[in-house]
Amino acid sequence: MDSTFVVGIDVGGQTSKIGVVNARGTVLAQTVIRTDTYDQVEPYIAELAEAVKKLIAESGTEGKVRGIGVGAPNGNYYTGTIENAPNLPWGRSRVEFSKLLSEAMGGLPVALTNDANAAAVGEMTYGAARGMKNFIMITLGTGVGSGIVINGEVVYGHDGFAGELGHTAAVLNNGRTCGCGKTGCLEAYASATGVARTAREWLELSDEPSVLRNLDTIASKDVYEAAKEGDKLALKIFEFTGKILGRSFADFIAFSAPEAIVLFGGLARAKEFLTAPIEEAMNANVLSLWKNKVKVVYSELKESDAAILGASALAWEL
Amino acid sequence: MDSTFVVGIDVGGQTSKIGVVNARGTVLAQTVIRTDTYDQVEPYIAELAEAVKKLIAESGTEGKVRGIGVGAPNGNYYTGTIENAPNLPWGRSRVEFSKLLSEAMGGLPVALTNDANAAAVGEMTYGAARGMKNFIMITLGTGVGSGIVINGEVVYGHDGFAGELGHTAAVLNNGRTCGCGKTGCLEAYASATGVARTAREWLELSDEPSVLRNLDTIASKDVYEAAKEGDKLALKIFEFTGKILGRSFADFIAFSAPEAIVLFGGLARAKEFLTAPIEEAMNANVLSLWKNKVKVVYSELKESDAAILGASALAWEL
Repeated sequence: MDSTFVVGIDVGGQTSKIGVVNARGTVLAQTVIRTDTYDQVEPYIAELAEAVKKLIAESGTEGKVRGIGVGAPNGNYYTGTIENAPNLPWGRSRVEFSKLLSEAMGGLPVALTNDANAAAVGEMTYGAARGMKNFIMITLGTGVGSGIVINGEVVYGHDGFAGELGHTAAVLNNGRTCGCGKTGCLEAYASATGVARTAREWLELSDEPSVLRNLDTIASKDVYEAAKEGDKLALKIFEFTGKILGRSFADFIAFSAPEAIVLFGGLARAKEFLTAPIEEAMNANVLSLWKNKVKVVYSELKESDAAILGASALAWEL
Repeated sequence: MDSTFVVGIDVGGQTSKIGVVNARGTVLAQTVIRTDTYDQVEPYIAELAEAVKKLIAESGTEGKVRGIGVGAPNGNYYTGTIENAPNLPWGRSRVEFSKLLSEAMGGLPVALTNDANAAAVGEMTYGAARGMKNFIMITLGTGVGSGIVINGEVVYGHDGFAGELGHTAAVLNNGRTCGCGKTGCLEAYASATGVARTAREWLELSDEPSVLRNLDTIASKDVYEAAKEGDKLALKIFEFTGKILGRSFADFIAFSAPEAIVLFGGLARAKEFLTAPIEEAMNANVLSLWKNKVKVVYSELKESDAAILGASALAWEL
């Protein structure tokens, strides 16, 4: 094992991060290319393959790379395709991503899935979920993503798209419109975007004093900073967000009875404000057999490496 | 395969049904004993084993029975135990069911799970889910049970109790109190009991004429009969029930992306009134990638045999 390596690629809307990783989960070398300067997939894949080859050469791992794991929006594990990815200029129709990349890499095997599933595999292989066979990964970023692991395997479902827990109902009546077009989705409340929306909404609906009133635009990071300074409104926003998350987690537990729920992503940095309301609402809404039994834990992967590590972990299974 | 057999046992609150089943899913012989006349598990198991042995002898399958599958309330697949089963006088504390029965049967292997999981295995082995690797079984009886199949395997979760979808939130504010002690559970609305509650609630809250007003007590069967006669209130009750189910199914789909949702149980008999509102609400609440893609189908097992068949199917996996 020590003498083989994998490549992890995290395809984001703006950039694609590439890393060479060893079996202990150390990123030996990494680089980045633009994602958003290509309208067509072929030239993008050509540059991506060049960058991977160069990185392998630089890290002295030629001939020892077992495979490539890729995390990408709407990546389908079964088919190796990316389809209908609104944030990828070249990925709006159906793209045979794994096949194209494998060909460009001289036949090296490629495994693809979406970013949240990749994060779950990463956490299971190198992080907070090591040794766990049943857990749910929730990524709290711009959106809310999820990767569900049952019996040690990521759940892909009938079509490869399972695990869209960000689009389950958190609010049933008069819910906010979500980016997906539905209303009341968990993502519309419990993402970084959702927290900023809550702040703007509450500032408008009340006269409550808050340092947030002094800002021209509000991002979730501002709410976090305000909460750290003890701003009461900001604290209440995290209380509300945590409660929404915990109530949803209770239903997720009823589905797959996980050992833990693992949180990851920019918003998860606010754990000192989120953990208590999450656990309270979760335990208030589960069947008694699960009360105080399911752990809420946070990613243990270094944030700058996490996306690459998650994607790379897929490749160990090739 | 043709020359081996399995035994299926459905442990209910009042009676336990026992059947000898062949590989085609034909119940060759069946019998029944009381469940509710025993305070202690030992004498119950002794009579159960006697009845099984007698049935095996009568059906001429001695020496050809591969194992015993049991579906029972709160049956735990991992541990073979029944615990905290409020409707089983001898099952209120922890009972080593599989071990006791196997010993009483001279070491014949015994597999145990809850009734809804057994129903899912039955449907996958002999019924509407044959050939499916990803589906969700929903049992609409006195309560709402569920058995989730992912990649051809029942989901048991970390503790063996996964798949309690009847206790996910169908109503978030001012929901009805459920038998489990929580409020707003799907089971409080979409079970046979829930339908009767809806009827009683609506009769009290409106003056709308309905044949249901003439009845002293109302069961879901009465609502069904009234709907068949065209009673408007009864029809609206099924519309409401189907909508609640469909909206919940949309969230279940986001979890495991099943090929189908399979409905079973007494209330599922009202399919002519339930299917349209279920499908409408389900498709209105899923992400667009699943719209009109997930089938809603009904059990194909003969109702009198279904519980035995479901339990028996477990034993083929022993």
